Amino acid sequence: MKTLLEAIDKPQDLKKLSNEQIKLLAEEIRQFLICSVSKTGGHLAPNLGVVELTLAIHKVFNSPIDKIVWDVGHQSYVHKLLTGRREGFATLRQFGGISGFPKISESEHDFFGTGHSSTSISAALGMALARDIAGDKEQILAVIGDGSLTGGQAYEALNHAGHTGTKMIVILNDNEMSIAKNVGAMSEYLSKIRTEPKYTKIKQDIEFLLRRIPAIGESVAKTVERVKDSLRYLLVPGVLFEELGFNYIGPIDGHNFELLSEVLEKAKKMQGPILIHVLTCKGKGYKPAECNPDKFHGVGPYCIESGEVIKNGNTPTYTAIFGETLLHLAKQDKRIVAITAAMPEGTGLKKFAANFPKRFFDVGIAEQNAVTMAAGMATKGMKPVVALYSTFAQRAYDQILHDICLQKLPVLFALDRAGIVGEDGPTHHGLFDYSYLRHIPNLTIMAPKDENELRHMVFTAFNTNGPVAIRYPRGNGLGVPIDQALQQLTIGVAEVVKSGKNVAFVAIGSMVETCMEASEILASEGILASVINARFIKPLDEQMIRKVCKDIGIIITVEENVLAGGFGSSVLEYLHDQNIDHVNVLRLGFSDQFIEQGSRKQILLKYGLHAAGIASTVKSYVQKLRCDVNG
Amino acid sequence: MKTLLEAIDKPQDLKKLSNEQIKLLAEEIRQFLICSVSKTGGHLAPNLGVVELTLAIHKVFNSPIDKIVWDVGHQSYVHKLLTGRREGFATLRQFGGISGFPKISESEHDFFGTGHSSTSISAALGMALARDIAGDKEQILAVIGDGSLTGGQAYEALNHAGHTGTKMIVILNDNEMSIAKNVGAMSEYLSKIRTEPKYTKIKQDIEFLLRRIPAIGESVAKTVERVKDSLRYLLVPGVLFEELGFNYIGPIDGHNFELLSEVLEKAKKMQGPILIHVLTCKGKGYKPAECNPDKFHGVGPYCIESGEVIKNGNTPTYTAIFGETLLHLAKQDKRIVAITAAMPEGTGLKKFAANFPKRFFDVGIAEQNAVTMAAGMATKGMKPVVALYSTFAQRAYDQILHDICLQKLPVLFALDRAGIVGEDGPTHHGLFDYSYLRHIPNLTIMAPKDENELRHMVFTAFNTNGPVAIRYPRGNGLGVPIDQALQQLTIGVAEVVKSGKNVAFVAIGSMVETCMEASEILASEGILASVINARFIKPLDEQMIRKVCKDIGIIITVEENVLAGGFGSSVLEYLHDQNIDHVNVLRLGFSDQFIEQGSRKQILLKYGLHAAGIASTVKSYVQKLRCDVNG
Repeated sequence: MKTLLEAIDKPQDLKKLSNEQIKLLAEEIRQFLICSVSKTGGHLAPNLGVVELTLAIHKVFNSPIDKIVWDVGHQSYVHKLLTGRREGFATLRQFGGISGFPKISESEHDFFGTGHSSTSISAALGMALARDIAGDKEQILAVIGDGSLTGGQAYEALNHAGHTGTKMIVILNDNEMSIAKNVGAMSEYLSKIRTEPKYTKIKQDIEFLLRRIPAIGESVAKTVERVKDSLRYLLVPGVLFEELGFNYIGPIDGHNFELLSEVLEKAKKMQGPILIHVLTCKGKGYKPAECNPDKFHGVGPYCIESGEVIKNGNTPTYTAIFGETLLHLAKQDKRIVAITAAMPEGTGLKKFAANFPKRFFDVGIAEQNAVTMAAGMATKGMKPVVALYSTFAQRAYDQILHDICLQKLPVLFALDRAGIVGEDGPTHHGLFDYSYLRHIPNLTIMAPKDENELRHMVFTAFNTNGPVAIRYPRGNGLGVPIDQALQQLTIGVAEVVKSGKNVAFVAIGSMVETCMEASEILASEGILASVINARFIKPLDEQMIRKVCKDIGIIITVEENVLAGGFGSSVLEYLHDQNIDHVNVLRLGFSDQFIEQGSRKQILLKYGLHAAGIASTVKSYVQKLRCDVNG
Repeated sequence: MKTLLEAIDKPQDLKKLSNEQIKLLAEEIRQFLICSVSKTGGHLAPNLGVVELTLAIHKVFNSPIDKIVWDVGHQSYVHKLLTGRREGFATLRQFGGISGFPKISESEHDFFGTGHSSTSISAALGMALARDIAGDKEQILAVIGDGSLTGGQAYEALNHAGHTGTKMIVILNDNEMSIAKNVGAMSEYLSKIRTEPKYTKIKQDIEFLLRRIPAIGESVAKTVERVKDSLRYLLVPGVLFEELGFNYIGPIDGHNFELLSEVLEKAKKMQGPILIHVLTCKGKGYKPAECNPDKFHGVGPYCIESGEVIKNGNTPTYTAIFGETLLHLAKQDKRIVAITAAMPEGTGLKKFAANFPKRFFDVGIAEQNAVTMAAGMATKGMKPVVALYSTFAQRAYDQILHDICLQKLPVLFALDRAGIVGEDGPTHHGLFDYSYLRHIPNLTIMAPKDENELRHMVFTAFNTNGPVAIRYPRGNGLGVPIDQALQQLTIGVAEVVKSGKNVAFVAIGSMVETCMEASEILASEGILASVINARFIKPLDEQMIRKVCKDIGIIITVEENVLAGGFGSSVLEYLHDQNIDHVNVLRLGFSDQFIEQGSRKQILLKYGLHAAGIASTVKSYVQKLRCDVNG
């Protein structure tokens, strides 16, 4: 017999079900997700939290006529299940499979793609205003977590939406978490609404008192009326949202399907911008995720029974090595402070936070504030580290440029998850940082060839009196031995890892190891390659480049970044500025397109950036050059 | 006899003055500013508005021990006058002169440089947290306008500061303006505090009623106490800031020096984060500026008596031409909508707004929201134009990349003030856009050689089914004839403006005209230059480049942008990818440094990017090449 879930191919199918059936369906969905994500990995906890909410939205509204924008979007699995993508879940987040985020090209029900936080209200506002111009009538919804509400853009959009007065519904999915425990005054405010009886209590109190006033004349009666009127406005919970021009409804139990449906039906008929405050439990219905929502926020494959995550080797990650090195240095230098934007775990700062709680700052999903705050700290003599994922640092490009680099302030950017990140795909790959950082004056940019070199780079950065960015990959290091003594690297000096006379790889970061492998393959075919570990994107080791040009004459630059404006591009610029010709340069990296999801291995293979691919490309290139010379 | 102002060389000098003397000093400062800025130009109105506020701050606090961060910073003239820079005002904003913004290198009293909006609370928060770690005791202040409060970063910082509970003072300078009339729900909220008696009235009302309740038993008495307690918390104006963890004080008359001093003294002794809401009048004390604060926000030299601005020629500006072209097209296509971030005048959209009020959106100083909102509109079939200054678009780099380009949405970015902007200096030059946009997949990037071509580019952009950026300079066009009929340009095709056999200028945007002049100079010295108007940074006209390589063999790329990752860099990348050698490429543009303030002419001259400088560089280059060939 078909399960209820198997009978749902589109949101309309939901409308035939009774409330009782929907409760059963909710249970089926939870079991489906727990089982499916245990195999593929994914954002389990956020999705378990929004089962009833998503069901109520699709019951009450008519997607795709009505538009739903999912902030960040990793909580859209239930939405995907209800909009015809059940069978795709076997391939969720896999190479060639369905995305872990809403994606316009995937379904007409994904009306807006997301991936980074805090954009949903802006996007929904744009749709609502466009609808008003066109004279259409459909409903526009944004579903945003309390974590995403720490991002300034969400506030910009609330502020503007409240001003326009357009009809839109913002559903605040409040689970008291972003990825880690949520932070900030707004979060405390929401928690106060949840827990403090004051807001409703005072209203009752005043009404109780008003009833006790003897009716003595018109002036008192009028005042009573005026007070009642004002109270109606002032003493609702969510006054903060009301002040921004929203009708606030809440807080609502986000696991009560009937209640949610009623509230959404009511909101559907109201005018103007509405904020519905829904309380949910991250990981709801799966004990390991409820107990450990942080771990199950985004998770790899796991054992359903125990909740144990299937481990991915024992080699320490770059993240862990960074965290340990920083902790070690911070023990010796009180001026070192660490800042993260809602990623204490993801950026390896948990131990630092535990050891130096007063020198650790989680600003929430607020990269702009993180960067300028670091600038402020640096002016006071601190040595701040801002640890961000490469892709999220894009949010603070202007602040990096102005507040840090223009003022030459000694701030270290630890850019984790640079290069291909895998299953999160195009919104999360860190493939642009060389290009968006390289042209910023005063910035030193490094990338380590392995986790051991990362340690030396962190050490070196603190001895550089100016802004530094270090970018390093997601996941496990290479498993190389770790030097105990930290070394000061010379700024702008590369390392010759291997000598060979025919071609020279000038590789950066993660690609040094890949080029070593490629050089082995080439050697077996008679092409002897040097491998240079560039270490610095900026300043470039110009002397090394000149030497390689002179000695070898064929340079292959290799980077895990887009080619446009990247590392290889800087090598070309240098060669031309110096009028060095008689050198052949081949640049390898990602061409001008967004790169899909898939494991790093699969992606590098597809784009020919694995060792064999690189060896083969280089071989053809060398052969062609020889032909040109001979022909 | 010395004026009072002449006797002020440092903030300490202020402390000797009586309140009466300070009132006289305020008057002297106003006269000084009105006179001084009438010659140099500058941000007159914002500074006239903060005379008393700045005096009170420097009277009560001890700069440079206490730190003051000026948001945006164009209101720091009074601060500069009081901190030893009076004599520098003759050179304000001029080449080699003092900056129109706070600048760390200029004075120990400028503790943090600003230029872009909404960063001050973040910077001050960083300083306050660093102070706490160091165990220091100084006061940290941020002075932020209500306009800057529309920027999301300000909210990120308020949210975080409220959470940390650190002592800092945020002075909200509320003049109901950003540059234009301020917008957004927050602005309406502030205005409500200013004007509505409700907040104070209801408190009085309830107390009036409570007094009328007969004392009948303990339960009523307890309730009365509880209500009073809650009211204290809830019924202050500024509850929104209180909810975010700030102590709110205000609103305060910002032109009453004694009152301001009292309030600041009180705030100095309080704990935790404090927000002081100060009401000021932009342009205070100079009638033309009070009546027209928009015009006198940032102004060129003007006649003191009449307030008439001294005109800078009659040639229409790029801004005006853009605005008119857009208006013209919008009359024929209902789907065209325009979005600005607090710059309706600066981006030339005033007429559009007047003609199509329902299709025009000013989001406040909120570039992130502007861009994602445009994305939302585009998904609903609109054709949005986001008109921003090049330098401010940096704030929305991530949104341009993800929300627009990843989704291939047809949004037009009209990037005004690209290249050297003049007196506003390093924080405002638009010298990075080629580099931070060029590596974004799916984006078409154009730059017109003159104002007439700008018209065709705007037209062309709307017929391109994808994201487009057009960047164009500040100020007057070249005065070329304007074609009435709009032409569709072929995407990725350059224009040969002039043919010459010895070298080929491949110039982009503003530099085409400069290269034409340079080619005249070169011709007089026997070097015949082709001048190619590249038109497109992306996609590059590859066929043209191949032809130029083949026919001429010497390419000079010229751009008003940093060289790193810029236009010339893309030409190099193409040549290498195609293995085209036997070509000499010289790239001209700005090298790797921040560029100071000064007129465009002065700056181009200094960096050798004026016609004569370019001609001379090219001549040397050609001579060297000839020597190399012959030698």
